[in-house]
Amino acid sequence: MKFIKSYASLIEKELENLGLPDKPSTLYDPQRYILSGKGKRVRPVLSLLACGLCGAKPEKAIHAGLAVELIHNFTLIHDDIMDQAGSRRGNETVHKKWDLSTAILSGDGMFVQACLQLQKMPDHVNLKRANEIFLNGINHVCEGQALDMEFEERRDVQTDEYLEMIGGKTAALISVSLMLGAIAAGADDEKVDLLDHLGQSLGLAFQIQDDLLDVVADPEKFGKKQGGDICEGKKTFLMVKTLEACTDEERSWLLACLNSGDVSPENVNEVINLYKKYGITEFTKSETERYYSDAEQILLSFDDSIYKEDLNQLITFLKNREF
Amino acid sequence: MKFIKSYASLIEKELENLGLPDKPSTLYDPQRYILSGKGKRVRPVLSLLACGLCGAKPEKAIHAGLAVELIHNFTLIHDDIMDQAGSRRGNETVHKKWDLSTAILSGDGMFVQACLQLQKMPDHVNLKRANEIFLNGINHVCEGQALDMEFEERRDVQTDEYLEMIGGKTAALISVSLMLGAIAAGADDEKVDLLDHLGQSLGLAFQIQDDLLDVVADPEKFGKKQGGDICEGKKTFLMVKTLEACTDEERSWLLACLNSGDVSPENVNEVINLYKKYGITEFTKSETERYYSDAEQILLSFDDSIYKEDLNQLITFLKNREF
Repeated sequence: MKFIKSYASLIEKELENLGLPDKPSTLYDPQRYILSGKGKRVRPVLSLLACGLCGAKPEKAIHAGLAVELIHNFTLIHDDIMDQAGSRRGNETVHKKWDLSTAILSGDGMFVQACLQLQKMPDHVNLKRANEIFLNGINHVCEGQALDMEFEERRDVQTDEYLEMIGGKTAALISVSLMLGAIAAGADDEKVDLLDHLGQSLGLAFQIQDDLLDVVADPEKFGKKQGGDICEGKKTFLMVKTLEACTDEERSWLLACLNSGDVSPENVNEVINLYKKYGITEFTKSETERYYSDAEQILLSFDDSIYKEDLNQLITFLKNREF
Repeated sequence: MKFIKSYASLIEKELENLGLPDKPSTLYDPQRYILSGKGKRVRPVLSLLACGLCGAKPEKAIHAGLAVELIHNFTLIHDDIMDQAGSRRGNETVHKKWDLSTAILSGDGMFVQACLQLQKMPDHVNLKRANEIFLNGINHVCEGQALDMEFEERRDVQTDEYLEMIGGKTAALISVSLMLGAIAAGADDEKVDLLDHLGQSLGLAFQIQDDLLDVVADPEKFGKKQGGDICEGKKTFLMVKTLEACTDEERSWLLACLNSGDVSPENVNEVINLYKKYGITEFTKSETERYYSDAEQILLSFDDSIYKEDLNQLITFLKNREF
């Protein structure tokens, strides 16, 4: 994993030296603030490793990596408004620290910065193709967010709809990170497509695991309180599966609980007990492993390299994460 | 002006046939709604005319035109949230008709659609250059919006700062519209630069005139109530100039008025009387004419064509508008 750490550090350094102007501070201070939040930088590291995997120097994908990390942070700023989240990774969210208008605007500005980075990709790159992959990916993220919002109002969300939602909201940008890394390396369409699928599997695995960790993780390490998704009335993988499996009476109680807007700690425990009763917690764990395994299988079709080893280790690391 | 009308119709038709998906409706319905708002389509018409002015068929700039119109509508959705505006052109604003989250998200989605259109520019176009002009223009708009927000908190905004603000918030996208039209035509850097300057002058003229119309226009035609900017506590060109010119006592009264959050009709009249007392209304009219005249002068340096005539007529039309 030593490559991964050094790549994450490289991204960190590049993010610190983006050269955003000082003023207007209303536009740029929140952008600097969210970028200083020390995320895991998983997406840009995926871009660099995918570039190496496809036979080029990983650093060729640095601008692709910065573009996806900036877009990821753009989505964090705007999603936190929509979710009315007060904190993220232990820090106040942008709309909380500043205000609504500043958060909307600085998010928009970060979208612009992300797209600008992408224009700096190596000269050999077909920019039209790179931009279209990037933009369609962002649109896919927006579609996922829209579905997520629509699900809040619905009582009958099915598993396939849930997967479509996280396929956009979470997986699309993972795919884009890998695909743009490949494109920076000058990879052929077949490899780009494989990485698209690898990213989808990895993204689904990551999000379903995130839903699981909300219930089973140590709140200290996870940085969120246990059952936070339940409190927020979110229709997670576990909730959707449980709603499909439970009795009518339990379903009515669960839906009333989700819509109450304020779930008590006792009721959170009651929900988690229902997850266990129907074996949903265990099933979710096995689905997570299955999607991670799909990603590992796709990776096997690439030529051996240190980048392939590192990608494999990164998948293992994510699979074993507890936060 | 017959070209202008037919070009505006062409844009209208293209906007109706954008092919936005039906679902998720939360993402796409608001986009369709704002685009159906029958704006003046000034920006895309400028793209088409600039393309013709630079010697190519105007239709070559159709995707550039759609990109700027979509970005303009993106800014409307997000600005209306920031301004807490309830209606626009007689229609409910998106965040009012739907809700905050839907407005943020559909605005983001429209940003994506705008950028996607730009990738469809003719094959001869240097996409890196086109994208950078477009993106830097959007960033300039964001900077202008940030300054506008900062000015609300300040007592000492100067005229040059005000011009910097509207140079971003309004003029940048007018410039981009013209520049991208020229780029679609394959124009050289000199022509693109001239159109950048023409757009800046035209944009400043348009916005300063807008500030003036808020005070002098027929509210029925203008679609906004008289003195709406004063009610909202906006530091317009007239306000900034008056604050520079008036006595300390009047300045204190004006600032208290702007910060009150609820200016009575009597006080709106009182403010307008102050504008008149210091000749600001007349001065603003002459400044508007001066900027329009600058735009006309730059246009003279281009070869004669029907597009040049139409651009000239469009400038005259804007200059004489009463709403």
